[in-house]
Amino acid sequence: MHSALVTDFYSLTMAQGYWIRNPGQEAVFEMFFRRQPFGGGFSVFAGLEPLLETLADLSFSSEDIAYLESLEFFRKPFLDYLKHFRFSGELWALDEGMVVFPQEPLIRIRGSLIECQIIEGMLLNCINFQSLIATKSARVWLASNRGKIMEFGLRRAQGSDGALSASRAAYIGGAGSTSNVLAGKKYGIPVMGTMAHSWVMSYASEEEAFKAYADIYPDHPVFLIDTYDTLRSGIKNAVKVGKLLAAEGKNFGVRLDSGDMHYLSVEVRKILDNEGLSRATITVSNDLDESIVNTMTLAGAPIDSWGVGTQLVTGGSEAAFTGVYKLSAKQDAGGGFVPAVKFSDNPEKTTTPGIKQVWRIRDGEGRALADIMALEDDEIKAGTRHVFWHPSGDYRHFYWDGEGRPEALLKLKMKDGGILAAHPPLKLIQEKVRTELACFDDSYKRILNPHIYKVSVTGQLRNLKLKLIKNYLGDL
Amino acid sequence: MHSALVTDFYSLTMAQGYWIRNPGQEAVFEMFFRRQPFGGGFSVFAGLEPLLETLADLSFSSEDIAYLESLEFFRKPFLDYLKHFRFSGELWALDEGMVVFPQEPLIRIRGSLIECQIIEGMLLNCINFQSLIATKSARVWLASNRGKIMEFGLRRAQGSDGALSASRAAYIGGAGSTSNVLAGKKYGIPVMGTMAHSWVMSYASEEEAFKAYADIYPDHPVFLIDTYDTLRSGIKNAVKVGKLLAAEGKNFGVRLDSGDMHYLSVEVRKILDNEGLSRATITVSNDLDESIVNTMTLAGAPIDSWGVGTQLVTGGSEAAFTGVYKLSAKQDAGGGFVPAVKFSDNPEKTTTPGIKQVWRIRDGEGRALADIMALEDDEIKAGTRHVFWHPSGDYRHFYWDGEGRPEALLKLKMKDGGILAAHPPLKLIQEKVRTELACFDDSYKRILNPHIYKVSVTGQLRNLKLKLIKNYLGDL
Repeated sequence: MHSALVTDFYSLTMAQGYWIRNPGQEAVFEMFFRRQPFGGGFSVFAGLEPLLETLADLSFSSEDIAYLESLEFFRKPFLDYLKHFRFSGELWALDEGMVVFPQEPLIRIRGSLIECQIIEGMLLNCINFQSLIATKSARVWLASNRGKIMEFGLRRAQGSDGALSASRAAYIGGAGSTSNVLAGKKYGIPVMGTMAHSWVMSYASEEEAFKAYADIYPDHPVFLIDTYDTLRSGIKNAVKVGKLLAAEGKNFGVRLDSGDMHYLSVEVRKILDNEGLSRATITVSNDLDESIVNTMTLAGAPIDSWGVGTQLVTGGSEAAFTGVYKLSAKQDAGGGFVPAVKFSDNPEKTTTPGIKQVWRIRDGEGRALADIMALEDDEIKAGTRHVFWHPSGDYRHFYWDGEGRPEALLKLKMKDGGILAAHPPLKLIQEKVRTELACFDDSYKRILNPHIYKVSVTGQLRNLKLKLIKNYLGDL
Repeated sequence: MHSALVTDFYSLTMAQGYWIRNPGQEAVFEMFFRRQPFGGGFSVFAGLEPLLETLADLSFSSEDIAYLESLEFFRKPFLDYLKHFRFSGELWALDEGMVVFPQEPLIRIRGSLIECQIIEGMLLNCINFQSLIATKSARVWLASNRGKIMEFGLRRAQGSDGALSASRAAYIGGAGSTSNVLAGKKYGIPVMGTMAHSWVMSYASEEEAFKAYADIYPDHPVFLIDTYDTLRSGIKNAVKVGKLLAAEGKNFGVRLDSGDMHYLSVEVRKILDNEGLSRATITVSNDLDESIVNTMTLAGAPIDSWGVGTQLVTGGSEAAFTGVYKLSAKQDAGGGFVPAVKFSDNPEKTTTPGIKQVWRIRDGEGRALADIMALEDDEIKAGTRHVFWHPSGDYRHFYWDGEGRPEALLKLKMKDGGILAAHPPLKLIQEKVRTELACFDDSYKRILNPHIYKVSVTGQLRNLKLKLIKNYLGDL
């Protein structure tokens, strides 16, 4: 069971307020994000399966209720209501692994205002973090020229679940393996590792340490060669032991973990090749991120695989995804839904009102041209000419001639609180990321200073937003 | 039970290697960190209680063993060994909440090489993250002039435990409350919250929304006043409802969540005071960190409390603490311990060898003068003149006249795998942080460009390090 106490306190005080006013009043909330992390041109949507599992299983235990009672903030009948609380709403979402853009709804929930409010913190926690890491991972993978990424982040991750969820999301985004054994067990992600300095230091000599390791693990052991000195000691001992393996038809690798990675990889490659060990592989680690990986890849550094830890599992310089969860419509007294809008003192924080769908328009070859936000009942059909508008509501617009395939991205995932379909295996989600990324022009995937992909709105949605702004300005 | 699979894969492959060589061989590992996060002058040591609880309770379940078996990497007798694995070592650590500095050991573990290796990833995960957040929190608290900090981070935290552990660490560092209800239940941290935009939007008018909230929660409700427009709408409605409360002798507050915080807080304060509502409080939120808080505090912005989320629970621009865990001594064939050292290709990564203690020297008033790393048996006594050296091993040194009180900071916390004393309540750990911070000159606590506190080594430890470096250079 998942405790519904994974919520912000204000969600519960507001929930009690909604309960007092009208327990049955429904609402629609949408989750979207405000800007691409890492200065990038795309994000990867992740965390959906854990979110659905949690929602399907969310409740307040009797201990939880007793704790809430002790706070002396909640009325007895409301606590009784919480005792039987289950999420019973309807949830629409993009498939996990989709490439996504700011402003467009990634998740849309319809349910009682109370349940929509209680799940806010948990939903954002789950989606924000995993989308951050899947995005980071896709960036590292692209930067490595679709190479071999090993996620090594456990020791620097933010808590035990910060590590576990990060391993899951990093795999979705493109990492091929994790060092976290529990993530291997829980998610079926391949586990991988090399050796630590302590292994080398626990032997009288580096050569002895490598030899002992190769004796136990003769199938492609990776020797850590910087415990004493990479070029003067480590690579020499690795070559000695590697030759013994080569003589038996086995391969091996070396790992560089300090010093200048590019310079050392070139020197080490030369030594290995000169010794006739051209099959031996080079792994690098040491606080890598997508910029460093990109620089080395572009410069042709002879690196076979990348061990990425801290930056991959925390996001590094950017540790949070800007996802928010906003009311987009509420039920009125007659039972119909009226659109809601939030303005705030930062104009870019004004929301796009109404119950929405997102359409991705692709050309004949499947290449993504633009995403369009539309009201739920406003189907976008091929074959006719459309005009689409910038979501800010200003004069910017473009014409689409109707050629290609518009695809509705939000799909029904939960109904009456129940999950509708089995989750795809993690490997398939990773493949979806790769397939989807391939649909976007390289300019959107550039690590630095990418092109901005268009997310627009239909005329109908634009008119609604402008009308609500006008009503509001009239009110002041 | 805590699964011992929360470990890096290489820890298990190395453990099998140690097991094959000599299951009984002991070692000493020390955990230390390399540099202060956030460009600061101090860190706060946190995460000890969860670490001890996990260690005392660590094991491989039969499911875990079955998973390891499926990897086809481990021999049957080694897996049988893991079935009965328990941490049975000795652990020394600083008290949780101590102010700490780079290079000095925060934790020292003696046990079999196998167990020391298996716990590495879990130990670093626990201590690194909580120390990062406790440090961030202490910085925000100091920046607010020891003010009222509310931790609001659940929705942007890194996973569910990333949120829960962060709430714990943020409280230790100085936050007064959390929004995370589960953290309130689990750790007894006061929970607090205001209202969301959705509350305001769910009513026909802002005034109605505030009135409804005050009716249910008349004891100091905090109105969120930026849903439409802070100055043209929000504050006016808050004043209307606030006057009704004031007439009943009740107080209230307002929360600013967008726009220029300083400008708005001054304007809102003027309006409240002009309306005779000088007791009404002002809370601000909106991506705050210690620099923004510091700027506003120094400029005298009239702010009563600070809601800090993303930056506080993730570290923001710096998402990881640089803690590492290194072999400092190993048992030789005769059963004695010999010091171990790691060099690497980055000179600053060369470790300080040997089994160590850390001493904090305080003057007569309790003010901290310097921290000294010494070999375990090298007691630092008051009353005699000492010379202490820079840990790099170069010429830098200083004299201490022997006046004051040297205090050994590493204390025995676990013996034979058992916890030796009850954990202090979280509130006491928070108080320890405050007491300890008071012992350090303000220059070390400056938010920007702080003074660097001295961490030195004794002559004996310096000589050992220089001797090992000489031996090693001779070897090449």
